[in-house]
Amino acid sequence: MKQHFFHTYPAINNALGKVNQTINDRITIKNTQLHDALQQMASNGGKYLRPAFFLLFANINHQTADEQEKLIKIASSLEVLHMATLIHDDIIDDSPKRRGAVSVQAAFGKDTAVYTGDFLFTIFFDLLVETMTGSAYLTRNARTMRKILTGELGQMDNRFDLDQSLLDYYRNVNGKTAAIFSLAAEEGAYFGHADHRTINLAKRIGQNIGISFQILDDILDYSGDERLNKPVLEDLATGVYSLPLLLTLQNHRHELEPLLAKKRQMTIEDIEKVQKIVVTHGGVEQAQEIATKFTQKAQTEIDELADKHTRKMLKLVANKLLTRVN
Amino acid sequence: MKQHFFHTYPAINNALGKVNQTINDRITIKNTQLHDALQQMASNGGKYLRPAFFLLFANINHQTADEQEKLIKIASSLEVLHMATLIHDDIIDDSPKRRGAVSVQAAFGKDTAVYTGDFLFTIFFDLLVETMTGSAYLTRNARTMRKILTGELGQMDNRFDLDQSLLDYYRNVNGKTAAIFSLAAEEGAYFGHADHRTINLAKRIGQNIGISFQILDDILDYSGDERLNKPVLEDLATGVYSLPLLLTLQNHRHELEPLLAKKRQMTIEDIEKVQKIVVTHGGVEQAQEIATKFTQKAQTEIDELADKHTRKMLKLVANKLLTRVN
Repeated sequence: MKQHFFHTYPAINNALGKVNQTINDRITIKNTQLHDALQQMASNGGKYLRPAFFLLFANINHQTADEQEKLIKIASSLEVLHMATLIHDDIIDDSPKRRGAVSVQAAFGKDTAVYTGDFLFTIFFDLLVETMTGSAYLTRNARTMRKILTGELGQMDNRFDLDQSLLDYYRNVNGKTAAIFSLAAEEGAYFGHADHRTINLAKRIGQNIGISFQILDDILDYSGDERLNKPVLEDLATGVYSLPLLLTLQNHRHELEPLLAKKRQMTIEDIEKVQKIVVTHGGVEQAQEIATKFTQKAQTEIDELADKHTRKMLKLVANKLLTRVN
Repeated sequence: MKQHFFHTYPAINNALGKVNQTINDRITIKNTQLHDALQQMASNGGKYLRPAFFLLFANINHQTADEQEKLIKIASSLEVLHMATLIHDDIIDDSPKRRGAVSVQAAFGKDTAVYTGDFLFTIFFDLLVETMTGSAYLTRNARTMRKILTGELGQMDNRFDLDQSLLDYYRNVNGKTAAIFSLAAEEGAYFGHADHRTINLAKRIGQNIGISFQILDDILDYSGDERLNKPVLEDLATGVYSLPLLLTLQNHRHELEPLLAKKRQMTIEDIEKVQKIVVTHGGVEQAQEIATKFTQKAQTEIDELADKHTRKMLKLVANKLLTRVN
């Protein structure tokens, strides 16, 4: 994973190194090129945010060696699930790049990408079965995976839909992004032997951070920041209308509609015009304010956590994560 | 499912009706059209062969009501896994049809098809967690799913490869088709409380029938029988060389190579020529003989089963299944 993100938190950084190792050990696939591509994706690209959240809540440094081993596996399961959904998302988005390298679908074709994502689902499954058999979290994981997919499917249903509500947007974001952050935090607390109240808090913290994270990601499309290796306005070109645009549509539909009505025939110029309208009318600022509300909600909930160390670490990480566009 | 296939076996037919109901109950997806497409796929298209094999080995009529309910769920998991892989396979094959209707990818696009297959994997997962937590079969299921995918990936790796061996072919067939038949039979025996010897026999019977089933399916490409709604020689056009062709290549490569070297540029005429060469030189007959050997192996193993009723039923079903091209 990207070493720089957690390098100031040696305990987490060290555990994430083990997560990386676990994932590499599991990705044994006969096709050498594909194997290398997966290893590259697992090793060089991601910030391992979901495992990191899990490990923070699990308080990994205060667990026994056996427990630590189990926690590393669960942390790995979260990243593997995330990787699988990324690979399948890239098929849908026709993304040429992922995590700074060529995406699996661009390098090996969509066909291989379908099976590669599926292959990772089986690794995800294995890691769960090895660590949480008998607990309700097996079912929770299946449900979370379903939430991710129904969020993605919901987003597809709403493509090019000028009449979608903010609620539709939140529902889709909740599924495609927040559900896994929420699960990571919740099962972190649970498998770290936290009490019932902390587990519930964790779940909400994860969800609020997840929503905020996605809104900030969507804002990047309009602010044109390319640090994420994400083509600017890629979403807009494929009819995915995110928060800054939906907010602007509420009062400036007459300006946007003629441009958006062109759908896939929109030119780069059209897209730039849309971007300008959204920025000019404060769509980005408003979205930023909403993201801040979700972040503050998470901060308040973090303050309610009993463990001082976890509180401090989480605040640092959440801040770092959620201020990347400022 | 296709009512006619098991209508002469009322016990199995009745249980398969419940499997169909279970699957329909689980497929709750917000998008109405997609929901209808999945229900249609689950209800009208398939022969439910994998659940049927499972139920035969599980001896379902001699189990308690509670046990029967559990067995119906496991039988459903097999069909759901099969459906998920079919939906993803159709993306790879660009198949316009599936089970006599328009395929999910043709009706809704490849994008939706990716997520729909994934969605079914979560249903598969749920059904397993509800029925076999604590048993080694959770892991066996994950491993089987991986075998299917590595079989499919292996087949893709071997596309247009004139030098692939029969072993490559068998390995891929074993993964993509036989693994799930083998699992169905094995876990049928296991969850039907059979003894260790029977469970092992079941596993081998399922595998041999599965291989034979796939070879016969591949033969259909060359005999041009369209009863399966499978475009004739679809495999050949996409570079998948199956047994009849591989056998013919062994002694008649000089005739085939100039045609096959055209790869995706092959015309319908070229494909017809290849078909003719394969048929003329006995490739279909030889493949048929090999399929018969696997069938006979399965028959011999079926004879070793202790339960007379299971033996009789299995022989009838295996015969019906494996003589469809005669």
